[in-house]
Amino acid sequence: MKRPLSFTIEKRLESSLARAGVISTPHGDLKTPVFIAVATKATTKGLGSFMYEDMGIQGIIANAYHLYLNPGEKTVERAGGVGKFMAWEGPTMTDSGGFQVFSLGEGLGKKVSKISIEEKPRESGVAVFDEEVATSHGKLAVVDEEGVTFTSHVDGSLHRFTPERSMEIQHGLGADIIFAFDECTSPTADYQYQKEAMDRTHRWAKRSLAAHRHNIDANAKQAIYGIVQGGRFEDLRLESARTLADMDFDGYGIGGSFSKQDILGILDKVNRALPEEKPRHLLGIGEPEDIFIGVEAGIDTFDCVLPTRNGRNGTVYTHAGKIIIENAAFTEDQGPIDEQCDCFVCKRYSRSYIQHLFRSKEMLGGILASAHNMRFLTRLTENIRASILDGSFQSFKQEFLARYK
Amino acid sequence: MKRPLSFTIEKRLESSLARAGVISTPHGDLKTPVFIAVATKATTKGLGSFMYEDMGIQGIIANAYHLYLNPGEKTVERAGGVGKFMAWEGPTMTDSGGFQVFSLGEGLGKKVSKISIEEKPRESGVAVFDEEVATSHGKLAVVDEEGVTFTSHVDGSLHRFTPERSMEIQHGLGADIIFAFDECTSPTADYQYQKEAMDRTHRWAKRSLAAHRHNIDANAKQAIYGIVQGGRFEDLRLESARTLADMDFDGYGIGGSFSKQDILGILDKVNRALPEEKPRHLLGIGEPEDIFIGVEAGIDTFDCVLPTRNGRNGTVYTHAGKIIIENAAFTEDQGPIDEQCDCFVCKRYSRSYIQHLFRSKEMLGGILASAHNMRFLTRLTENIRASILDGSFQSFKQEFLARYK
Repeated sequence: MKRPLSFTIEKRLESSLARAGVISTPHGDLKTPVFIAVATKATTKGLGSFMYEDMGIQGIIANAYHLYLNPGEKTVERAGGVGKFMAWEGPTMTDSGGFQVFSLGEGLGKKVSKISIEEKPRESGVAVFDEEVATSHGKLAVVDEEGVTFTSHVDGSLHRFTPERSMEIQHGLGADIIFAFDECTSPTADYQYQKEAMDRTHRWAKRSLAAHRHNIDANAKQAIYGIVQGGRFEDLRLESARTLADMDFDGYGIGGSFSKQDILGILDKVNRALPEEKPRHLLGIGEPEDIFIGVEAGIDTFDCVLPTRNGRNGTVYTHAGKIIIENAAFTEDQGPIDEQCDCFVCKRYSRSYIQHLFRSKEMLGGILASAHNMRFLTRLTENIRASILDGSFQSFKQEFLARYK
Repeated sequence: MKRPLSFTIEKRLESSLARAGVISTPHGDLKTPVFIAVATKATTKGLGSFMYEDMGIQGIIANAYHLYLNPGEKTVERAGGVGKFMAWEGPTMTDSGGFQVFSLGEGLGKKVSKISIEEKPRESGVAVFDEEVATSHGKLAVVDEEGVTFTSHVDGSLHRFTPERSMEIQHGLGADIIFAFDECTSPTADYQYQKEAMDRTHRWAKRSLAAHRHNIDANAKQAIYGIVQGGRFEDLRLESARTLADMDFDGYGIGGSFSKQDILGILDKVNRALPEEKPRHLLGIGEPEDIFIGVEAGIDTFDCVLPTRNGRNGTVYTHAGKIIIENAAFTEDQGPIDEQCDCFVCKRYSRSYIQHLFRSKEMLGGILASAHNMRFLTRLTENIRASILDGSFQSFKQEFLARYK
């Protein structure tokens, strides 16, 4: 069977799992390690695909949960898939919606009613879905063996995802790389529940894979990644990696954790348990220092909302660390955000001007800061890749981190 | 004396005052008739100068009131002037702040306390400035013979503009074309008050001109336009045009009215009273049908916030008239906003996608709609100019307006 995705490792380091390679998709190559732009609702916040080339963006990751709710996967499918819909010709991924169902449904934050699976009585570890409870309590997510019933964060309407339904949605969205449907547990969940959830995620992974392979048309055009779960417990993470490694996935996502501390420390071990020849994606982690950790632990692709979220808040990356652009020190600063940056923002605009935009509450401020931050991260992974290829990774890393506070 | 602005009329129509020409400034040419982008706070809302070339933007108009409040004209001056500050190399204008002092101070809308000059006792037609009244009543603008005292719309702090101060600010901002400081009257002001205000505006025009010519450095680099006032009264408008025509301005702005109906009907007569060889700018009017009226009445340059304000609201221009992009009819519409448009938005994005962005409250929706609208208007004036030059203006106008509903 000819797979829609191929991964060639060009160079491996001996001192760590770091490697440089090329992931080839039907819509072009991802030269790894690479930072992928988040485009949750088929747009990177504040940044259009018309700006991607200038920002060195090689690929994007959209979200099945959000695009299922709006505009619906059928609309995206009729437009020719998520890439065509958003006018982006390069490689695309979609996350399965698992994280969003649980994070937006059950709620990480304070705005959400706490009718969570852990607070409800369970029979043999599985919450029993009770429609009356679900509809009467606003936002929630109730898991059962078959799938998850949840209320939309948009209008509170009731929806249900199963692994099969997530595949159907992701086939409609048509991204080059899709993800198995997984259960994201709460960071406070105890060991017993994490184990139950992980085992269920593995059964869902199998069903996701079967549903995907069964759709011959999608199978020929779209690659599927499994997602390693297990929360903050090392033995569960390793068990998850080994279990998924035995399944016929095209690559692997590591994620679903709500805290990066849960995963960065054991990432190296997790990746050693995964097949070496398949690409690995680290979901939702993207601070510069964490990217180095990820690369050395064998991660090939990254995505994270931080560059645009920070950008909208006026926090921008420089080689000397992050700065708050509204700081009075920059009022008369005619220099670019970062002297070393090659982005169109730094080529054109001063710190003084960008501060003025933020202080005047002009949306261009967030746009420019987001664009710069995005380029900062794509360039960081470009430079990491180059340093792996030419053998200078260790010195590049040391020099970068010595300056970056 | 070598002036910083020259205006060459390339062609005049016989059937109306319409004409095509070139305004040459120290930062390049404006090929007229032309629609100028509003950049009130040194940014067009949602659109960066890095996109201007794609949108066919030839020049921008920033605002002395807003830039005086934030970041202050000294900061802009130290950056090298408003063009350099916002990274725009082409021609720039600044409005004097008169309109904003009165519209944001005295208040067009409902949010503003109605302590207006017309409701205060006046001695011989001039409001006496009373600091106690001013500071105790929040937003207001109090006019006297010397100038206007007003509260900032940002923080309520007390400020004062005079013609001399407006010139000083505009010299700091350093635009190629600056405007005399004028009083904008309320649309409900009676004839007597309009006359008083107009006479005062003429005295202010003289003082603005003197202050400008006195600054030899600015005078050599910046052109100054007088502003025709007189509210909705034809005789006052004509008197204003004739009075200003006798002064040594480099060009003229027609404006200060809060209702376009006040001015469009008498524009032709007003412009006939102005010197034919000097350029004329119509302030704040930009609907396609009004641009035709303006061009035929002899207007050379236009500016208006409508393309971006409409864009942010999801109202977009097409050759068949304006459409609301969130309309259900466009949910599956894979075509561009306007089939005939050459903008980067129409080349790339579908109505379906842009609707999705608006429904999802993604800021990219407003950005793309604003960019398209801006190009629609710059292209309209490009086409009007071409039709004047090749003698097809009447048929172009008839065909355009027959389709545009």
